[in-house]
Amino acid sequence: MNERIWTAGMVVIGDEILSGRTQDRNVAQLASWLNVQGIRLAEARVVSDREDAIVEAVNTLMARNDYCFTTGGIGPTHDDITVDAVAAALGVGVVVHPQARAVLEAYYESRGGLTEARLRMARVPEGAELIPNRMSGAPGIRIGRLFILAGVPHIAAGMLDALTGTLEGGRPVLSRTIGCWIAESEVADMLRAVEKAHEGVSIGSYPFFREGRVGANFVVRATEDALLDRCANDLMARLEAEGRTAVPGGI
Amino acid sequence: MNERIWTAGMVVIGDEILSGRTQDRNVAQLASWLNVQGIRLAEARVVSDREDAIVEAVNTLMARNDYCFTTGGIGPTHDDITVDAVAAALGVGVVVHPQARAVLEAYYESRGGLTEARLRMARVPEGAELIPNRMSGAPGIRIGRLFILAGVPHIAAGMLDALTGTLEGGRPVLSRTIGCWIAESEVADMLRAVEKAHEGVSIGSYPFFREGRVGANFVVRATEDALLDRCANDLMARLEAEGRTAVPGGI
Repeated sequence: MNERIWTAGMVVIGDEILSGRTQDRNVAQLASWLNVQGIRLAEARVVSDREDAIVEAVNTLMARNDYCFTTGGIGPTHDDITVDAVAAALGVGVVVHPQARAVLEAYYESRGGLTEARLRMARVPEGAELIPNRMSGAPGIRIGRLFILAGVPHIAAGMLDALTGTLEGGRPVLSRTIGCWIAESEVADMLRAVEKAHEGVSIGSYPFFREGRVGANFVVRATEDALLDRCANDLMARLEAEGRTAVPGGI
Repeated sequence: MNERIWTAGMVVIGDEILSGRTQDRNVAQLASWLNVQGIRLAEARVVSDREDAIVEAVNTLMARNDYCFTTGGIGPTHDDITVDAVAAALGVGVVVHPQARAVLEAYYESRGGLTEARLRMARVPEGAELIPNRMSGAPGIRIGRLFILAGVPHIAAGMLDALTGTLEGGRPVLSRTIGCWIAESEVADMLRAVEKAHEGVSIGSYPFFREGRVGANFVVRATEDALLDRCANDLMARLEAEGRTAVPGGI
């Protein structure tokens, strides 16, 4: 059974990430959300606030994936150039979206009014729809299979929430974690053998050092529940056969 | 004065980042370290544990930048393929590095001995040197201007520490942060004007919502201290002229 795999690319926009000032949280957040939609994050790129850098990343990731998401650069200041860059990538103009303008007018009515700078946040690539933002004024933007989200993680989260269930995807990737107090180098051959024995499964190994001891969590991933069970049980049985305690759920 | 700007690209390798299981910390860590070396992180790409994805990212970022760094995928398990992928990207073979072998032999002497799986961690692209790792057994790898670091952040940090001061760079990017309890949309025009008035400076605006109020930190960046001072003072004066309190160091 060869099922279609749906993928997404992601462009994280912002000098604040590349300067080390801000720790990105949107890659992990988007990846987890995509999993539930049955879509895999295939690649993420962090690029600076430069139009050519954004255009190149958006074009490449759009061509390779079913969906493309950007985060960051949609505020009112001079370094917020995502809308213009995406419009350039798509070869369309930039227009003021009447509904976005109305949303911002309402939002800023009690906050000093809609200035020229704030009106920038109503600009969208031609042909775009809005993604609701319940947290602050500026909405997210959808143009077909491209999604422009906020950079502030909790605002991006609200936009993803509004998109939940609206994107076509495949079966969600399911996972089981098995923990063990063992050096991963002792079970490298075992992991390779188990992965090989169960087609359609991938196993990741995540070592840690805690309480003065080494251990690892093994994450088994597949889209089919029964297959996942078989593989996880196989791995646990092999660990136990070596006299180790396998901890379902991980350590 | 046009000084040479040194740049680096970064390839973050690992399905655990793209699945959302693990929050990457190496982009921020490497970026901050590079700043101090006078090198700017120009782009970071997060790719999966697939050779073709790694090869493409490494080749592209090597061609565009003075340096390239990878993190992740250098452990002993089947999903650790960074060394093979980098060797393929460079068009060289993979060899066991005698010094890495000796390091691992010593490290595993009291930990069950050097198995076949553990010996994988002594494999390097032909012509490589080692980067010391004081935290655990496996060393990092340097091949000319390409650096292969561990994925576990504190191990990567140790490797960067060992590299400190060994890479040629330009003047470090300096920054000053100025905080203000103001909506960034109210000062968008001011920021644009200040940036324009001081050539060689970039200003980032980072809004926040705290204690029920909106505010923003403005980060002024430049390589010249006097220029930075002039620009920061100009911005503070303009904020104060609007009756706002500018907080040096940020809020």
